[in-house]
This record gives sequence, C-alpha cells and structure tokens, in this order.
Amino acid sequence: MLLAEGGESLHLAVSMLIIFGSAKLLAELFERLGQPGLIGEILAGILIGPAVLNWVQPSDFTATMAGLGVMFLLFRVGLDVEAPELIKVGGTALLVGVSGVVVPFLCGWIFYVSQGKSQLESFFLGTALTATSVGITAQVLAAKGLLHRTASRIILAAAIIDDILALLLLGVVASLAKGRLDVLQLSLTTAMALIFVILVVRWGQKTLNQVVEKLEGNLRVGEAQFALAMILMFALAALAVKVGVAAIIGAFLAGLALADAVPKRVHDLTHGVTELLVPFFLVDIGLHFQLGVFQDWTSWKLALLIIPIAVLSKMIGCGLGAFSHGRAIAIRVGIGMIPRGEFCMVVAQIGLSLGAISGQTFAVIVFMAIFAAMLTPPLLKIAFRGVLAVPPPEQEVFHLG
Amino acid sequence: MLLAEGGESLHLAVSMLIIFGSAKLLAELFERLGQPGLIGEILAGILIGPAVLNWVQPSDFTATMAGLGVMFLLFRVGLDVEAPELIKVGGTALLVGVSGVVVPFLCGWIFYVSQGKSQLESFFLGTALTATSVGITAQVLAAKGLLHRTASRIILAAAIIDDILALLLLGVVASLAKGRLDVLQLSLTTAMALIFVILVVRWGQKTLNQVVEKLEGNLRVGEAQFALAMILMFALAALAVKVGVAAIIGAFLAGLALADAVPKRVHDLTHGVTELLVPFFLVDIGLHFQLGVFQDWTSWKLALLIIPIAVLSKMIGCGLGAFSHGRAIAIRVGIGMIPRGEFCMVVAQIGLSLGAISGQTFAVIVFMAIFAAMLTPPLLKIAFRGVLAVPPPEQEVFHLG
Repeated sequence: MLLAEGGESLHLAVSMLIIFGSAKLLAELFERLGQPGLIGEILAGILIGPAVLNWVQPSDFTATMAGLGVMFLLFRVGLDVEAPELIKVGGTALLVGVSGVVVPFLCGWIFYVSQGKSQLESFFLGTALTATSVGITAQVLAAKGLLHRTASRIILAAAIIDDILALLLLGVVASLAKGRLDVLQLSLTTAMALIFVILVVRWGQKTLNQVVEKLEGNLRVGEAQFALAMILMFALAALAVKVGVAAIIGAFLAGLALADAVPKRVHDLTHGVTELLVPFFLVDIGLHFQLGVFQDWTSWKLALLIIPIAVLSKMIGCGLGAFSHGRAIAIRVGIGMIPRGEFCMVVAQIGLSLGAISGQTFAVIVFMAIFAAMLTPPLLKIAFRGVLAVPPPEQEVFHLG
Repeated sequence: MLLAEGGESLHLAVSMLIIFGSAKLLAELFERLGQPGLIGEILAGILIGPAVLNWVQPSDFTATMAGLGVMFLLFRVGLDVEAPELIKVGGTALLVGVSGVVVPFLCGWIFYVSQGKSQLESFFLGTALTATSVGITAQVLAAKGLLHRTASRIILAAAIIDDILALLLLGVVASLAKGRLDVLQLSLTTAMALIFVILVVRWGQKTLNQVVEKLEGNLRVGEAQFALAMILMFALAALAVKVGVAAIIGAFLAGLALADAVPKRVHDLTHGVTELLVPFFLVDIGLHFQLGVFQDWTSWKLALLIIPIAVLSKMIGCGLGAFSHGRAIAIRVGIGMIPRGEFCMVVAQIGLSLGAISGQTFAVIVFMAIFAAMLTPPLLKIAFRGVLAVPPPEQEVFHLG
C-alpha cells in the first residue's frame, strides 16, 4: 500500500470520504430544512464537482459507483413493494402511469419546439419530464406513515408502470439520436423487454419462492440468501440490458421477484449496501451539473418555464388517471407523482453523451428535477392534511429511497 | 442506462455477476468439501482471470472493488474487537511483529544471495516476505467466531506493528534502489505512523463514545450512525495512507475506535457491504496469478523453494515472539501470520518498476503470495482444532463472514 500504491489507496479513501461525506452533510442540512435529503446529496455533487469546488471530477470510478448505486436503489424499491397491494389498484395505476407519461412528454416536447429547439432535443426534454422518481415519493410518504393509503398505493404502482413506459420512450429517443430508428429492431426490443418484464413479474416471485425454499438450509456458504439475491440482481440487470431495457429495471424486477422469498436479514444487508452506494449515484448527478450555462438569461428563462410545465403536466396527467377515485385522491396522486429524480438525470446524461441535447438543456433538466422534488413535500403535506397515518406492518418502509 | 449506455451497464452488471457469482459458487463448493470458502474465492479469481478463462483481467475496476473490500473487511474486524483486548497483548504483539519481520527478511535475503542474485534483488525478496496480509486470517477467525481468543488478539495487534515495520523496510529498499537513502524522511514517516496508531488506539474509542453520545438523536438524516461510521472509516483510511501506513490499518483502527459506540444496526449494515465487497478482494488476488513465466524449470525451482521459506520463516519468527504464551498459542500466531497479499504484490511492483527485480522474481513473489494465502486457512483450521468460539458481547457471531 505504501509509496507505489500509496497514491491509489489515498485517492480511493479520499474520494470515498469527499463524495460520501459531503453527500451526507448536505443531506443532513436539507433534512433539517424539511426537504428530502437526496436533494442535498445531488447539490453536494454540484458543490464538490467541476461546477464549484472541482475536488472531484466525473470518472470511471464515480460512474461505476453511481451505476451500482442506482442498481441497488431500484433493487431495494423492488424488495419493498407489496405486490398484492399494488395489483389491487393496478387498473387505476395503469391509467395514471400512461397519462402521467403521455401528458408531460407532449407538454415538454411542444414547449421546446415552440422555443425553436430541434425535434430531437425536444423529444429528449419531453422524455426527461416523464418518469416520476419513486424513491423521493416513497420516502416522503413513508416518513408520514401514509404508504398504505389508497392514494399512496396508486402512486407506487403507477410509478412502476411510469418507469417502464418512460424507459421504453427513452429507447425510442435514444435510437433517434443515433440517427437510426430501426422500427423493427425497436419493436423487437420493446417486445423482448415486455416479455422479460411480464415473465419476471408474473412468474418470477412464484419461481423464486420455490427455488429459495428448495435451497433453504442446503447452502453452506455464509449469508447464502444474500449471495443468491445479489447474483439474481446482477443476472437480471445484465439480462435487462441484453433485451434492451435499463440495468436498473432488471435490478428492480429482481427485487420485486424476491420481495416475498427473502427474509428481513437480506433486506437489512441490502440496505447497508444501498445506504453506502446511493449517495454516489446522487452525487454523480451533481458532478455533471454546469453552472456556467446559467450565466445567460435564456437559461434562467427556460428553467423558470420548464418547472411549472413539469409540475403541472404531471399533476394533471396523473390526476386525470386517478379521477375515478374522487377528487381528493386524484390530487394526492397528482402531487405524489411530481418528483423527478434518477431517471430524469439518466435521460439528460444519455442525451448529453449522444450530443442530442445542449449543456444548457442538461443543466435546465437537473435544475427542474431538483426544484420539482423540493416542491413535493410541502404540497403533499397540504394534500394529505387530515389524512390519518397508518403505521405499516413492518419497518421496511424505512428502506425506501 | 438504456441502449446508449447499454454497453457500460452490461459490462458493469456482467463483471459483478461473473466475479461475485464465481466467488460464491466456488466458496460453496469448498465449504462442502470442508475447506474454507475463501480459498474457493481466490481460486475463482485464478479461474476467471488471465491464467485460465481470461473472462476478467485485473483493472482499475477490480482494484477499486478489491481495495474497498479489504478496507471493509478490516473495518468490520475492528468493530468486533475491543481496543483494550489488543492493548493487553501489546507487549507480545510487539515481539511477534518485530521478529515476524526480521526473520522472514533475513531468510529471503540470504536465500536469494545464495542463489547468486544481486544484493538489491535479494533485499527486495526479503522485504516481500515481511508483511502479513491479515485480511485472510481475520476472515477465517471471524468466520469461526475466534476473534476473541488470545492468539487472535495477538495476531491482530501484531499485524499493525508488522505493517508499519514492513512499510518502513520497503521505504529503505526502495530508496536504496533509487540510490538515495533519506534517513530523516524515513524516521519521520515511521514516527508519524506510530503516533497515528497510538493516538487512535489509546484515545479513539473514548473520544468517539462521547461524540456519538452527543450526536445521538440530533441527526435527521437516515441511518445517521452508519453514515458517521463510514465517514470515520474513510477518513482514517486516508489519514493512514497520508502518514505512511496501509489504508486497511486506518480502516481497522476506525472499526476499533467505533466498537463501543455503534449499535447492532450499524454492524448489520456494514456487514451487508462487507459481504458484497470481500469476494472482490479475494478474487482480485487470484486474478494476478500468472503461469507464463513458469515455463522454465528455474522459475519452478525458485517458487518451490521460496514458498517453504516464506511460510516457515513467518511461522518461526512470529511463533518465537509469542512463545511466552505457550506452544499452542505460539503455533496459532505463527500460522495466522503466514498469509501475504497486497503488500507483497506492491513490493514486487515497486521492485519491477525500479528495475531492481527480474520479471521472474516478480512472478515468483506473486505465486508465493497466492500460495501462502491459500495455505493458511486449512493450517489455521488444524491449529485451532478444538478451540471453542467465544461469542463476543452481542450476537456478532452471526455477522461474521
């Protein structure tokens, strides 16, 4: 470790310290301000990144840790989703999910076209407005003990559908950006993705319950169930990428499939990894943020226009989908679906890496996501005023993003 | 993550799957054969590495994951050990550390001189034989719940001294190779390293108990105590490297200092991370295995001679140091100190980069390190046969590998 590797070991330890430490420091600060800690963690990335202090630059290291972080975040959300609870509201959730993707996409697309942006960049902006960050939503609802209200169950179920639809949408715009929209290829990908998702959702849990039951006690290696869960997660993540959806969807489905099969012990161990790695994902987002573009007025104008569009389009789109449950629930669902997060940043990153969106649009999207997420807790507080908290059966709620 | 980034996500997920999966598969196999699982995990590295299948090559990715893995391994061991336990055996540990460095160095040096190698190359070989890689032993002892036996406590304490001395020695031979021996700089480094270790061991725990007590309940961020533990670990690991010792020593001392302060919850969460990352540390050892240079007989001869020298010199040197505790404990300590690992490879890398050792000596050193690491667990099993596991205060035995 000395001399030769001293530099490396030092670099590793220092990087871990700076990224994780700053994330938690700002998360604590934001929690005290009554805001989701994860916004503080994204801002930590902006602070230590090239935008401000430039202590840490985006690298293979940060990308790897971020990739693992978001994989584990979605895996844990999958583990904590109560499948039956969600299936009960599946019909409404489907409506909410669909209209909650279509309306924001159209609004974002039309708005950007009206601003004289290219079709491609407009598609990317629309796509960036589509996916709700279930992590933020669930965290807020869990903290208030409201996870098991009808509105909350609709939100959780819709967020899953929303996520998958948005990822398929990203598939379309991403291949458009690469200049070759091979419809056959894309519909094939979509078909494979759907088959993959349906197979895992439909039979994954049942199969795994049997597998785990069979293996139970037959394995000698320490923490065998945790090891199996990890292997399944990495396998489904890889498979998901192979069939054309995101690694995070594979990880999420692995969690969903394992939700019943694994004991609380595995939840705890997974939670430890997630607690360590998720900050790297959030900080990595901030690392890509550029303040430079906010020096000109047009960036501010775009940001200030996109925020209401992002918030209202999601509220209206999702609210309409849930209207059959009455106005109050529709409003709660609409507000609960507002926050953007992980996915939004992923779209922005891909758009940037493909040269499909400008640094300005990237910065504006990140700005919008942070703002929309920060807006949600106070609005939810109002929407759920007078609604009694239902203490959940287990403490698993604390595992939610 | 989708399509555009597909390549990267796929690569990450697949790498995680291959490394973690193969490690656990072979671990399971070895457990069934009544052998310690971690030998299987090292073999997994040899199997998937350049030596055999060449599915995975040593890279920044594997090095990072391995570095984090051994850091968390030592941190967790530190969490499960009480500083006073180590201080009690401090005197013996000092003897073990010193003679455990001197004897192997002399044996390696004399052997290589006797083979007609240069003084410098002989110095490097001697140095390569000095530092114990406590990770392997710690994992075995932890898995068997033997961390609190006298021999284990001596091994852990001696490993710290051993590391400091070995690093000092490397400093000497490295500067000899560079033709300029800066005595002042070296003694300064040694002094700083000692002061660092003494400060943390002596006052770390007391200080942190007070700090954590103060912070208790005052933090809003989720899993605040876990976050604090991680931050302290990365901070001490970085500080350790800064003052000239290995990052893992800093991580170990951080765990030691936190042993009292943190609740079972933090142990659980840390354990999750360790369970995920330690296989990467073990596999990485195997990844460095090369067969190429072993096509000529002299390499085999050297390797087959160096292995017994490396093993016996360490056993005898450390055993002598612990003889005051009786023959049984002396043997356990001697065997527990056998494994070489990271340090060995570092010495070899430096020697090679300075042109002080031949490619043959490099390969032989790496071969020896891997062989010694694999030889230790079964020997430990024999040495500790019939020794009862001592469950530490809480149910930590569950948490151990």
